Amino acid sequence: MNNSTKELIDKIGSDLQSGAAELALKAITVYQHILNNLNHQNINDLKNELTQASILLIKAQPGMAPIFNLCNQVLLTASQAQTIDALKSTCDDTLANVEKELCANAQIIADHVNPLIPPGEVVFVYSFSSTVITALLSARSKGKYFRVASTEARPSFEGRKLAKTLTQGDIEVMHTFDLAMGLVLPSCSIAFMGADCVGLPGVVNKVGSWLLAIACKEHGIPLYVLCDTAKFVNEDRLFEFEKHVRPGLEVWPDFEPTNKNLKILNHQYELVSLNLITGFVTEKGIIKTEDLANNIKSKKVHEALQLEEAFL
Amino acid sequence: MNNSTKELIDKIGSDLQSGAAELALKAITVYQHILNNLNHQNINDLKNELTQASILLIKAQPGMAPIFNLCNQVLLTASQAQTIDALKSTCDDTLANVEKELCANAQIIADHVNPLIPPGEVVFVYSFSSTVITALLSARSKGKYFRVASTEARPSFEGRKLAKTLTQGDIEVMHTFDLAMGLVLPSCSIAFMGADCVGLPGVVNKVGSWLLAIACKEHGIPLYVLCDTAKFVNEDRLFEFEKHVRPGLEVWPDFEPTNKNLKILNHQYELVSLNLITGFVTEKGIIKTEDLANNIKSKKVHEALQLEEAFL
Repeated sequence: MNNSTKELIDKIGSDLQSGAAELALKAITVYQHILNNLNHQNINDLKNELTQASILLIKAQPGMAPIFNLCNQVLLTASQAQTIDALKSTCDDTLANVEKELCANAQIIADHVNPLIPPGEVVFVYSFSSTVITALLSARSKGKYFRVASTEARPSFEGRKLAKTLTQGDIEVMHTFDLAMGLVLPSCSIAFMGADCVGLPGVVNKVGSWLLAIACKEHGIPLYVLCDTAKFVNEDRLFEFEKHVRPGLEVWPDFEPTNKNLKILNHQYELVSLNLITGFVTEKGIIKTEDLANNIKSKKVHEALQLEEAFL
Repeated sequence: MNNSTKELIDKIGSDLQSGAAELALKAITVYQHILNNLNHQNINDLKNELTQASILLIKAQPGMAPIFNLCNQVLLTASQAQTIDALKSTCDDTLANVEKELCANAQIIADHVNPLIPPGEVVFVYSFSSTVITALLSARSKGKYFRVASTEARPSFEGRKLAKTLTQGDIEVMHTFDLAMGLVLPSCSIAFMGADCVGLPGVVNKVGSWLLAIACKEHGIPLYVLCDTAKFVNEDRLFEFEKHVRPGLEVWPDFEPTNKNLKILNHQYELVSLNLITGFVTEKGIIKTEDLANNIKSKKVHEALQLEEAFL
């Protein structure tokens, strides 16, 4: 694999500001980069490069189901090809389809979300999800007036990116620090969050989602997860998210590393159990939590991405 | 009032790193400064200066009961004096007594806290309270081994000050960002917080305390408030804390003030209702929540500090 491909993947790994769907769109460009800069004589070398890139992409963002699904689809498509030309052509189609679907589904989800937003009231949103943002901007552009309350989302402050994006779309935002969500939630009628992946034990999302969920329960505020069903995964894949631990320096840049009594923890994701979620707004409509099991289907996984082999 | 007194008071008002008891000790120095730099011929001018300083001190930190109590005691003492010399002498005594009591009570509280700390386990602590720190350092110095989990306490990061202070006292600290308290609490056996004031509706403390309290409830972790009974106040005084709103710039230093759709909220205190508190560790021992009412006694309030007159 050449250095420019590695750089693209590293950039995705260190991107703490983007949601899962947005990162999947960025991962598409990694494959496009490989397929547009072919330097292999042998199809097996190309397949190996795609496999390596896929494993690195999943390791870069292990909690993000859309990235895993994309990688898996690309490898399954590539495995069928007999020639380099056929591989390029079928993989290009797969990438185009995934991209089209991600964008189309975001708009379908937005259409399902619109009736949930109570006119004139306040919607709580945490962290950064392109699906949630598309839904809110779409509702506003269709003339619905409402306000958003959001928090900064430490340590990477992607909540500020959320606030900026929404205000640019003419939505009024009340922004505060994370633990002040307890103070603003009583003014909110509904809360939305994105997801990195969803399985039967619960929803994996940015750390802080669990406190949001129990605070919503305490105040009786409905909490919807807005996501494509491509984020629905089996249990084994769900627990991959625990691998995503970030450097402590991101939490406390000038802490003294010589202080042997101090340990900084910087986990990215946590699990919110299903009983705390009101429902899932997906491209198939609103799925009630109790109907989730029927919507999680076992998908064929390329052998290179099966857990035991990929992460030994 | 001279400028140096005003400066001392302003410093207390902008101190977001210290707990209530610590700030009361700093407020004592304001009165000492006035009494040691007497430039009044007339006792009424001196009484007026003390009254003005008291009103400013309470406005500087309206949520902090120990400051209110100190100011009230000083004014009640001063009101009895007939001469400048008598005033100075009786007020010096009052200040010395308050200081002695604050320090002695912190140690008595520490002695009551020690048996609550399960040896070898993890204690959760939020924000910065000198009472909590005294208790933890005291237990450690008596040979008890335990660890502390704490979070940064945005926006002013006084949780970092807590972590540094505890590690210097040879306590291992696991430190993380605020919303990650949901991830670390399951490893904790008990949680401690300080208080700015306590009344029958609940405990006023740094914003974030409510989320901590409902997370403790969710995980079945006992949550104790460590505080001197001088923090127990009547309801009218309790609601003064709502006045403490800080500039939005402290939350988001480089936000665009021209963005008319963006409003930054920066509240300092919130109310945690009593049903979320396991008990109060005070200098009188551990007071159960249901016995709190018997411990809140109406105190005589100097006329200059009665709410209607002081804050018109």
